[in-house]
Amino acid sequence: MEEVFLAWEELKKGADSLVPVIAADHETNEVLMLAYMNKEAYEKTLKEGRMTYFSRSRNELWTKGLTSGHFQYVKELRIDCDNDTILALVDQVGAACHTGNRSCFYRKLAGESR
Amino acid sequence: MEEVFLAWEELKKGADSLVPVIAADHETNEVLMLAYMNKEAYEKTLKEGRMTYFSRSRNELWTKGLTSGHFQYVKELRIDCDNDTILALVDQVGAACHTGNRSCFYRKLAGESR
Repeated sequence: MEEVFLAWEELKKGADSLVPVIAADHETNEVLMLAYMNKEAYEKTLKEGRMTYFSRSRNELWTKGLTSGHFQYVKELRIDCDNDTILALVDQVGAACHTGNRSCFYRKLAGESR
Repeated sequence: MEEVFLAWEELKKGADSLVPVIAADHETNEVLMLAYMNKEAYEKTLKEGRMTYFSRSRNELWTKGLTSGHFQYVKELRIDCDNDTILALVDQVGAACHTGNRSCFYRKLAGESR
């Protein structure tokens, strides 16, 4: 797999100047959550090897697991074709979701045809 | 798995009034891409059973595969704990990425320690 180094300035930002990050289990590929990074979160994650996000609701840096113990250790970070989304393959300690579910995507969306 | 019906109005929107959608392979869980939906894309996807997004770059509705043939048939839609992100488990025809790669995440992001 091709490897690239991209500084924060080279990533394309969303309307809120943040970059979305998909966290998935590195062994099963199960999607765990979607969160966002600012420059500080991005650089801290690269440096420390565990996921730090920027919390949009609390408007502050958020190292996942710092209060819950549910850290996400980085196994691999990938970037998409247009440099605007990060995929983090992680070793998830415990549950990714604050509800206690392993993944935040624990509800099925019913369609029109139900 | 719990099943919920959520109208577009009940979803939390990002700063751009869109909702991010993670598309993953329904068999392998491989993350294929991240795209966005507006109300029209959301309702069209629910109705037709194949993924339609809103293209931020072209500023128009975008039924994935309509020009490339690489349709994404919906196997299951999930919603996250805070109703602001959709996970679509899809049957991906061909490649999800316009580069011809199966997934848009075909490049590894090198860390500080390289």
